[in-house]
Amino acid sequence: MKKIVIVGAGFAGLNAARCMRKFKDVDITVIDRENHHLFQPLLYQVAMAALSPAEIAAPIRSLLSRGNARVIKASAERIDLASKRVVTDSGEFPYDYLLLACGAQHAYFGHEEWEAHAPGLKNLPQATEIRRRVLEAFEAAERESNPDTRRRHLTFVVVGGGPTGVELAGAIGEMSRYTLARDFRAIDPRQTRVMLVEAGPRILPSFDAKLAARAMRDLESLGVQVWTAARVTNVSSEGVVIGNEQINASTVLWAAGVRAADIGRTLGVPLDSVGRVVVNPDLTVPDHPEVFITGDLAHSAGEDGKPLPGVALVAMQQGVYAADMIHNDLRGRARTPFRYRNLGQLATIGRSRAICEIFGFKLSGWMAWWVWLLVHIYRLSGFRNRVIVLVQWAWSYMTFTRGARLIVGKEWRAYSKDVNP
Amino acid sequence: MKKIVIVGAGFAGLNAARCMRKFKDVDITVIDRENHHLFQPLLYQVAMAALSPAEIAAPIRSLLSRGNARVIKASAERIDLASKRVVTDSGEFPYDYLLLACGAQHAYFGHEEWEAHAPGLKNLPQATEIRRRVLEAFEAAERESNPDTRRRHLTFVVVGGGPTGVELAGAIGEMSRYTLARDFRAIDPRQTRVMLVEAGPRILPSFDAKLAARAMRDLESLGVQVWTAARVTNVSSEGVVIGNEQINASTVLWAAGVRAADIGRTLGVPLDSVGRVVVNPDLTVPDHPEVFITGDLAHSAGEDGKPLPGVALVAMQQGVYAADMIHNDLRGRARTPFRYRNLGQLATIGRSRAICEIFGFKLSGWMAWWVWLLVHIYRLSGFRNRVIVLVQWAWSYMTFTRGARLIVGKEWRAYSKDVNP
Repeated sequence: MKKIVIVGAGFAGLNAARCMRKFKDVDITVIDRENHHLFQPLLYQVAMAALSPAEIAAPIRSLLSRGNARVIKASAERIDLASKRVVTDSGEFPYDYLLLACGAQHAYFGHEEWEAHAPGLKNLPQATEIRRRVLEAFEAAERESNPDTRRRHLTFVVVGGGPTGVELAGAIGEMSRYTLARDFRAIDPRQTRVMLVEAGPRILPSFDAKLAARAMRDLESLGVQVWTAARVTNVSSEGVVIGNEQINASTVLWAAGVRAADIGRTLGVPLDSVGRVVVNPDLTVPDHPEVFITGDLAHSAGEDGKPLPGVALVAMQQGVYAADMIHNDLRGRARTPFRYRNLGQLATIGRSRAICEIFGFKLSGWMAWWVWLLVHIYRLSGFRNRVIVLVQWAWSYMTFTRGARLIVGKEWRAYSKDVNP
Repeated sequence: MKKIVIVGAGFAGLNAARCMRKFKDVDITVIDRENHHLFQPLLYQVAMAALSPAEIAAPIRSLLSRGNARVIKASAERIDLASKRVVTDSGEFPYDYLLLACGAQHAYFGHEEWEAHAPGLKNLPQATEIRRRVLEAFEAAERESNPDTRRRHLTFVVVGGGPTGVELAGAIGEMSRYTLARDFRAIDPRQTRVMLVEAGPRILPSFDAKLAARAMRDLESLGVQVWTAARVTNVSSEGVVIGNEQINASTVLWAAGVRAADIGRTLGVPLDSVGRVVVNPDLTVPDHPEVFITGDLAHSAGEDGKPLPGVALVAMQQGVYAADMIHNDLRGRARTPFRYRNLGQLATIGRSRAICEIFGFKLSGWMAWWVWLLVHIYRLSGFRNRVIVLVQWAWSYMTFTRGARLIVGKEWRAYSKDVNP
C-alpha cells in the first residue's frame, strides 16, 4: 500500500487531501503543526477586530473526517529525500509520495529585530497581537494628556503596499472614522493618522495601474496617506524612519515581504532568493518525481516565465494538480505539466469598496466589493462559518460596529508572578 | 459637580453605570483593566470550544457609548479612603462617590503552585488556555502508541462540584462522546475518563438535593464519574492525588475555590476569610457612606444571615441598588437597606440537560435546558452577540459539532528565538 504524506494543511495541502478521497488502497497522512486550517484571505479581518479567529479557521480533522486521511498534529522539522522520510517533533513518517505545502512567513530583509515593533500577519496569534496593539493605541490616546504623545498613539504606519497592506490601512482608516468615533470622550479618533508606505513606485503592483490608482483614491477618502517610493530604513519602539524622516508611531504593521518556510532548506536542492524551491514543470523536486512542492513554498514559473504569485488560487490549483499526478502514477498514466488558470485577483479598501480583476473584467467601487464578498464567503470552509461571517458582516455593515473589539492578554495565570518565576 | 468613580465593569459596575445615565450634573468615570465586559456565565462555553471569546464579550465603550460615563482602561492598584482617591497604573482619580466592583479570582487554598497544572476559569485567557489543553490532550493521545500514556492523555479531572465544575465536566464528557468521536483514527475518544472531584458530601450544594441528584445522574450518562467527599491533596504535571490515590491525568481543571480581588485589602477595613469586604446593610464600607462595595468583592448578608452567593444576579441587583442610593443622596432622600430578590439559579449538564430553580419552581432535563438557554441569550449584552450565539447553538445542536475547536499558540513572533532573547 503506497504511503502518501502531506505536510501542511493550507490551501494546497487541504485541497490535495480532499482530492485523494477517491484514491483506493493508499495510506494518507496529513501533518500540520496547527489543529486548524486557516482561511488566510480574511486574516486581516481578525487583525482589524471584525471577525473572531474561529470564524476563519476550522479543525483540519473535521474538514477531513470523511475520507481516508489520518491527521497528525506535529511540526515537521526536515525532509530526508534519500530515505524518503519526514522527520517531525513527534516521530518520523516514511513516504512513497510527499506533498510539501508549508507556505511562507513574513520577512524583514535581514532586519528580523524589527519584528518586535512591527508584527507581520501570517497566523492567528499575529492577528490577535495586531488587534491588541491597534485597540490599545486608542485606549492609550484616551488616557494621554500630552498632545505629542497622543499623536504618536494615534499614528499607524503600515509598511508594504500589496493587498494585505492596503486592506490593513483601509480598515484602520475606516475603524477610526466610523466605528470608534462615538466611543471616546477625550480624543477624536478621526484625528488618527494612517500611513501606507511602499518602497516601489506604486501600490498594488500586481494590479492594473488604473485600478491601483482608484484604490489609492479610495484609501485617501478614508484618511490614509499613501507614501510611494518610500523606503523604511529603521523601525523602533518610537516609530519608523523613512529615508531620513522620523515618523513617531505607536503602531507599525509589517506587510512588506515574505520568505518561504524554512523546511525548504532541509531538502538540499536549489532555492530562489526568498527561499522557495525551484520546481520542475510538474511541481516536483529535481530528480525526485515522488516529491511535490506546492503553494508559497514553490517557485513555479507561469506562462510569462515569472514565478507564480503566493496567492490562495495558485495554492489550491497546485494541490489539486499534485493529487491528480499521483493518481495518474497509481493508474499508470503519464503526467502533464502544471498550468495555472488565472481567474483574477481582488483587494478590498474599507467597508464597501474594492478592486477586482476577474475573468478578464476590471471592477472597482461597491460592485467589486460585492464580488469580493461573494467569492470569499463562497470559499470559506464550513457552512456554519459562512452563516456566522455573513451575520457579522450584515450587522457591521448596517451599524458600522466591529464584532470582535477585544483586547485579550496573553497571560492566563493569576499567581504566576509569585510562585512560578 | 460630584465625581462618581466605578472600578470594574462586570455585572455590578456595568449595571450601575447604565442606571446613572439618568443622573444630571455628575462626572462619571468607569475604570477597568480590560476593554471588555465579560458575560461570565458562558465563559465555560469558550473553554469548551463552543463559543468564541468575542461572542461573550463586548467593548465597555460601546456598551456605555450612550450616556455620560468616561471609560478608562487602567488597572486600579489601591484605594485611598482618607483622601478619596483611586490610584491606578495610569494616574489617580479623585471621587465623591466610589463603587468598587472588582470581582473575584480562583484560589488554591494556599497551594498557588498548583495553578500551573490546574488552570481556573475566571477570564478569557484562562478559557482559551483550558480549550488549548483539552484539545491538545486529544491530539497527543492520537499520536501516542503506549496505552498507559494514552490513558493519561484521555483522563480529565475537574476539581470542584459547583455549577462551573459540573458544566465543565459535562461538556468534556459530551465533547468526547459526540463531537470528536468521528474525527480521530487511532483513538476512540469515547474511552475518555472524566472525573468530577468534590470535597463536600454532594455536588451543587446550593441546589435542592433532588435536583443535584438528577444532575449527577445526567453527568453519569455522559460518562462522567462523580467523586464526592474526595479531597485533592496534590496536583502535579502527572495528575492529581486524591486522598492517597494517584490519578494520572494530562488535564486537570480547577473550579474549587474563589478569593475576592486583592484591592479589597488596600482599604484597611475588616475582610472575611475569602477576602471579601464586610459591608453595611447599604453595601457601604464602615464609616464611609460614600464607598459602595458590590458583587463578588462584597460580603453582604442575605435574609438567612448567610453571605449572598457570588453570582451574576446578586452583582446586577447590587450595582443597580448602589446607583439608586447615590441618586437618593443627590436628591436629598434617605437610603434604604439592600434586599436581594432571589429569582433562582441554573446549571447545565451537556448539550440539552440542565437543572434550575426559578421563581420557586424546580425543573430538570430538557425543559430546564430551554429555560437556561432563554435566560442566558436574553441576558447576553449586545443584540449582535445574541444572534451569533443563537446561530452557533442551533448549528451545534443539530450537528453535534463545536464552532471554536481552535488551538491557538501564545507566541506570535516568528523570529523571537533568534533575535529577541
